[in-house]
Amino acid sequence: MNFLEEKILSDGIVKPGNILKIDNFLNHQLDIEIIRHIAYELRLRFEGSKLNKILTIEASGIAIATMLGLACEVPVVFAKKGQTANSTDDKYVSHAYSFTHKRMNDVFVSKPYLHPTDKVLIVDDFLADGQAAHALIDIVKQAGAEVVGIGIAVEKGQQKGGDTLRKEGYWLESIAIIEEMDADTQTIRFRGQEPAHLRQNGTAELS
Amino acid sequence: MNFLEEKILSDGIVKPGNILKIDNFLNHQLDIEIIRHIAYELRLRFEGSKLNKILTIEASGIAIATMLGLACEVPVVFAKKGQTANSTDDKYVSHAYSFTHKRMNDVFVSKPYLHPTDKVLIVDDFLADGQAAHALIDIVKQAGAEVVGIGIAVEKGQQKGGDTLRKEGYWLESIAIIEEMDADTQTIRFRGQEPAHLRQNGTAELS
Repeated sequence: MNFLEEKILSDGIVKPGNILKIDNFLNHQLDIEIIRHIAYELRLRFEGSKLNKILTIEASGIAIATMLGLACEVPVVFAKKGQTANSTDDKYVSHAYSFTHKRMNDVFVSKPYLHPTDKVLIVDDFLADGQAAHALIDIVKQAGAEVVGIGIAVEKGQQKGGDTLRKEGYWLESIAIIEEMDADTQTIRFRGQEPAHLRQNGTAELS
Repeated sequence: MNFLEEKILSDGIVKPGNILKIDNFLNHQLDIEIIRHIAYELRLRFEGSKLNKILTIEASGIAIATMLGLACEVPVVFAKKGQTANSTDDKYVSHAYSFTHKRMNDVFVSKPYLHPTDKVLIVDDFLADGQAAHALIDIVKQAGAEVVGIGIAVEKGQQKGGDTLRKEGYWLESIAIIEEMDADTQTIRFRGQEPAHLRQNGTAELS
């Protein structure tokens, strides 16, 4: 079991509706050592990819992307979400459904920040159905740049995003892949492993 | 002139409507060396503050906060924006007007991530009228925690946010304070300095 799977078992909580709550270290409070470890693991996994730019999407991908940019010494771009109608700047625009806000969001990157010569690693904290990843891929393609890979902290393997991206031929690395989880028994099964109990040491719901 | 003022002169552009466009290194594309330099400068300025937590607000504060969390070895919390109505979690909620979206946003932090014992440094990329900073201060106070200071990359000194916070007694450090800027002549006057011309080496609008 790797460091991130261990951390999920230690500090995460499974909530009804197939929700893994790990916002005590990944996407609300940030455990900087874990974020750094995620970044170093992604750097290792994409060694040889010749990436020269990291692309993520606001907001919770930014911490991992920043730390990875530091580790790889390349610039980071974060795609913005929302409505672009009022803006006059030239942008690459795609679309992704937001489960949080229950609507389609524009996802966009200003044109000067992606070039045809860029070899882009797409990074995010979560991968579920792959809406955000596909929007970012679309944007990279619009720029005529190359997607060298997709680096994810936590993939929800029950949803189809990850396996679709693999079938499409993308080099996808997810540090933890959740195959099943159960709120009643507080168990998680990671890909390739036996089910394990969460220990709920985290403060997510306990204070 | 410090490193951030130099970077603004080198890569920034003044646009009509008193807008400083520096999204080529600070809040869309991230120049990781500059972000790291900002974080180290803030660590230096708040030495002795005994901070044990960094609080910022999504999205563009996250990169600086992450790098500062790494430098100071403390956890980072980023406040979320949007509507909280659908959530059942306990949150500290405040409000700030979004000039980008032209509406009042809820700003919130889940209660487990701020404690009465916390000594919080509030961090953001920009300070203009101080709406976001005041919302974050309000949230820290709701938690019974202490605001030890407010660390900002770029303060727009023509607007009142910074001077109001100083009058209120907060320890505010802004690395670059813009007193005046002019889109026609592409000049900026930083606080305490003579006006200087932007060199427009950045790619913000030029490619």
